[in-house]
Amino acid sequence: MTLPPSIPHNYTPLTPVSFLLRAALIAPDSPAIVHPERGVKLTYSQWAARTLSLTFGILGTQGWRTGERVAVIAPNCPMILELHTAILAAGGIITPINIRNTPAEIAYILKHSGSRLIFCDSEYQHLLRSNESSSPSAQIIISNDSGGRDDSDPYEHFLDAGHRIWAEAEQAGEKSSMGQLKRGWELIDHPANENAPAALCYTSGTTGRPKGVLTTHRGAYLAAISNAFEAGLGAESVYLWVLPAFHACGWTFPWAVNAAFAAHYILRKVDNDQIWSALLQGGTTHYAGAPTVQIGIVNHGRAERLPRTIRVAVAASAPTSALLSQMEKLNLLPVHVYGLTESYGPVSRRYPHRSWADLSTDDRARLMARQGHGFLTADEVRVCRVPPEDADPQSVALEDVRRDGKEMGEIVMRGNIVMQEYYNDAEATRKTFRDGWFCTGDLAVRHPGGEIQIADRKKDLYISGGENVSSLMVETELSSHPAVLECAVVARKDPKWQEVGHAFVVLRPDHRASEKELQEHCRKHMSKFAVPKFVDLVAELPKNATGKLQKNVLRERVAKLAESAADRQAKSKL
Amino acid sequence: MTLPPSIPHNYTPLTPVSFLLRAALIAPDSPAIVHPERGVKLTYSQWAARTLSLTFGILGTQGWRTGERVAVIAPNCPMILELHTAILAAGGIITPINIRNTPAEIAYILKHSGSRLIFCDSEYQHLLRSNESSSPSAQIIISNDSGGRDDSDPYEHFLDAGHRIWAEAEQAGEKSSMGQLKRGWELIDHPANENAPAALCYTSGTTGRPKGVLTTHRGAYLAAISNAFEAGLGAESVYLWVLPAFHACGWTFPWAVNAAFAAHYILRKVDNDQIWSALLQGGTTHYAGAPTVQIGIVNHGRAERLPRTIRVAVAASAPTSALLSQMEKLNLLPVHVYGLTESYGPVSRRYPHRSWADLSTDDRARLMARQGHGFLTADEVRVCRVPPEDADPQSVALEDVRRDGKEMGEIVMRGNIVMQEYYNDAEATRKTFRDGWFCTGDLAVRHPGGEIQIADRKKDLYISGGENVSSLMVETELSSHPAVLECAVVARKDPKWQEVGHAFVVLRPDHRASEKELQEHCRKHMSKFAVPKFVDLVAELPKNATGKLQKNVLRERVAKLAESAADRQAKSKL
Repeated sequence: MTLPPSIPHNYTPLTPVSFLLRAALIAPDSPAIVHPERGVKLTYSQWAARTLSLTFGILGTQGWRTGERVAVIAPNCPMILELHTAILAAGGIITPINIRNTPAEIAYILKHSGSRLIFCDSEYQHLLRSNESSSPSAQIIISNDSGGRDDSDPYEHFLDAGHRIWAEAEQAGEKSSMGQLKRGWELIDHPANENAPAALCYTSGTTGRPKGVLTTHRGAYLAAISNAFEAGLGAESVYLWVLPAFHACGWTFPWAVNAAFAAHYILRKVDNDQIWSALLQGGTTHYAGAPTVQIGIVNHGRAERLPRTIRVAVAASAPTSALLSQMEKLNLLPVHVYGLTESYGPVSRRYPHRSWADLSTDDRARLMARQGHGFLTADEVRVCRVPPEDADPQSVALEDVRRDGKEMGEIVMRGNIVMQEYYNDAEATRKTFRDGWFCTGDLAVRHPGGEIQIADRKKDLYISGGENVSSLMVETELSSHPAVLECAVVARKDPKWQEVGHAFVVLRPDHRASEKELQEHCRKHMSKFAVPKFVDLVAELPKNATGKLQKNVLRERVAKLAESAADRQAKSKL
Repeated sequence: MTLPPSIPHNYTPLTPVSFLLRAALIAPDSPAIVHPERGVKLTYSQWAARTLSLTFGILGTQGWRTGERVAVIAPNCPMILELHTAILAAGGIITPINIRNTPAEIAYILKHSGSRLIFCDSEYQHLLRSNESSSPSAQIIISNDSGGRDDSDPYEHFLDAGHRIWAEAEQAGEKSSMGQLKRGWELIDHPANENAPAALCYTSGTTGRPKGVLTTHRGAYLAAISNAFEAGLGAESVYLWVLPAFHACGWTFPWAVNAAFAAHYILRKVDNDQIWSALLQGGTTHYAGAPTVQIGIVNHGRAERLPRTIRVAVAASAPTSALLSQMEKLNLLPVHVYGLTESYGPVSRRYPHRSWADLSTDDRARLMARQGHGFLTADEVRVCRVPPEDADPQSVALEDVRRDGKEMGEIVMRGNIVMQEYYNDAEATRKTFRDGWFCTGDLAVRHPGGEIQIADRKKDLYISGGENVSSLMVETELSSHPAVLECAVVARKDPKWQEVGHAFVVLRPDHRASEKELQEHCRKHMSKFAVPKFVDLVAELPKNATGKLQKNVLRERVAKLAESAADRQAKSKL
């Protein structure tokens, strides 16, 4: 990549694009992409050449201008990883779209982002049908994920066209002795402003319209370096794509894996059988996923203790102690991380302490659930008092909670790996910042040792008899019962206590426990007001297609139960 | 550290100062400093408190202004590591001075840098004697390296005074629930400009006046992250201070070790007995040093195969294959790095290749000697043609050498981990940059696989019968002979060939080899013109106190030999 001559000699604008070229120059023959389902294998030099063709293809789009948005609708596949580098190299902004969104949501995102190009995996083409009217000028490129072995794959045609543009550009330029690949990359401009936007990721809010999280080249570079460092990625690592790459740009792993010259191992969907094949035979060293995904993996029929330790980042919501302990027994080393789309994915983790060596696995897991230590390139993660509801939050200065493990506050952060803004939404941006800090909406306590423990989303907290109860903390207690496989707690309106907990519990196969026994188990470790008043044993919990728990479904269910109970009570009083 | 409110929420100026505070917050009880010789042990929270007192002490110096230079004359000790953070935190520029410099050189550096404060270890106080006149306004603080256990230690008095200023500043401010240490650090301004100068390191040039290499906060931060990543430093690591911390700011390790929450293990001098104690009993996981230092370590009487692998960065000059192979046998894993003071220390390394696993140790070592792959945060390291002697270098565009392992060129670099300039020396700065690239003066070839192999300093190259000969390459060949412990080759004037090689060889104890045998060994692998015409077996090579080979001494010796030979020849012709 070529820098403008005006840039000082001791300054290279930070951009995650540079990692792929560096990998291709230093580790040209190392495996970059392994995609067993489609029989695709690419070395870093092959992959950098494909990605460069893609870059030229985008640059060759009629009327292409720097700063334009390019949408991607795809599961984990080589294309979405290639686009993470190519779109940025072409000066564009990548807009990865969640394939579980509805066609209407996708239409909204395409319109709001003003995407000029849309790369879409053929399996998800139906999501675009209703959008024809919403983005008439956008060019759509369909991919069959064929890895170049299907002559009719439109994405491969796009790459071929890009390759011809590259060849023409090269003929026009000077010859070089440095090899075609490097010469080709030198024809591309290096992003001259590291604070230029790099990605636009829409959060799938449960209420309201999705918001577009705008991040920068500098932030993505520094976050990717943190992820590579904190995960201990190296040239021998194999990163298994369980986490969707469309989710917060795959937590910057499309770039972090390149920074370490590690291999990307592709999984198009979360299939536990394929995952166990990758763990047992694919050389996997790292993967990441939400607790609900981990539960599926550790309870799968092929689960067995692995011969070597695999590092697993567990995030999205805090894992229960029981799950962490179960993973360790399989030689899956859980690293509990915390972050949001607004922080480029993980921004903090729990550092294990030397003194843990003598503790039982369960105790270690319990300590690991506390976390919140800033990543290498992150600023400190703070827990601050939530301003009173009647105050204007902007006028209340930030104040840290006590380090007592009890006082609950909101997690706030700032610095290089915090988003720039909500795209084209000044009001949402203004509301989410206080005193120059991004307010996450997540609640936590801070322990005397400095570590924080995520309590809940603000909305998952409820008040019972005047006391704050965190549904996550109740779930953690329930999960420590040996018979419990999975559980969820939501608030239920109560005539006496205002709100009470209503737990839904899935038991392990061949285990039994009564509702009463589970309540008594909670009572041993929790205040009385926090013990769930209702416990329902159920066959399964409602989840969406990515395995994320749908608490809103449970909330609707208990709302109806509470209503009919109130009805009955009212009737009995008559 | 407090940021001015004008800084955007998604921007924190990069500074290596932040690593110590982060370590103290996340790993407060982890060992930071282990200094067995003086019985000093400090945790990160204790050390961050000391360093903060030091910062306040500097800030409290009469008339202190941002950007002032603070000199340090000390061997490896806690003070020099503390100053690497404290001076920068106070807005100053650290000027570490080589304790092997002469008093006259030191006087020059103190004057040229305009150092306002001088921190000096009591053992090296004599170096300052002649300087009284050169820097009359400078304040000198002597340290006994007592770690606070000697009431008469002036450095400790300085820290005590700083601690009082801190306490006063804290009383004046608001109270906080976040603990004294964090509150204290919040009273310090975060450097608001990441491109502000951070360090001024004088290179001990063999010719001419020392030049002051000026580096920045951003560069030091990014270089430290690279060093932590490339060395694989982690919270369980123990970094043994063999490399002097005054040398190019200890290659940024005073910050990199903090970034990883690893422990600094202090050695005041290169003592092989102490080194083996640290390797065998001190928990060392990493150290760095020049090849001549490594030779002393691997040949020491206590040398034995270590139970666990220790990573050793080998630099300053390229190690011979024989040394690399010897280290591997002791379980010292050599990582060959290359860099200069102008690149914050190491800027490139050799990445081992998967295919090496089947090779012999000697073959692996031979491949490892080729290197030059840019560090994580470095730009590409290039090898470019040297402009003809009669051309104005500024007018000749940079051109890469062929990737054939033969064409010799100069190593050039640019980017975030290249120095800003030679301090107050616009002419030297101008001369050393071409086309916006820093020209190192080091010669190398580039192999077809992309890796580079350092040939020599420009001045260590000589011309024999019209052919370029690299003295390092001759040394590498000689060292591969099993009887050779160490060797050095310099050019000698020759009436027929213009210059020829003159080798000085130290044999291993209990090994024998004749001069002729060594020449024949070279002839097997090298062109005839490169085989040294003269080989002298010697008991030892001339070295300075830091163990660096003094080639200039050998050059003077051969100059005299060549002269008297010419005399004899002239006489015999009479």
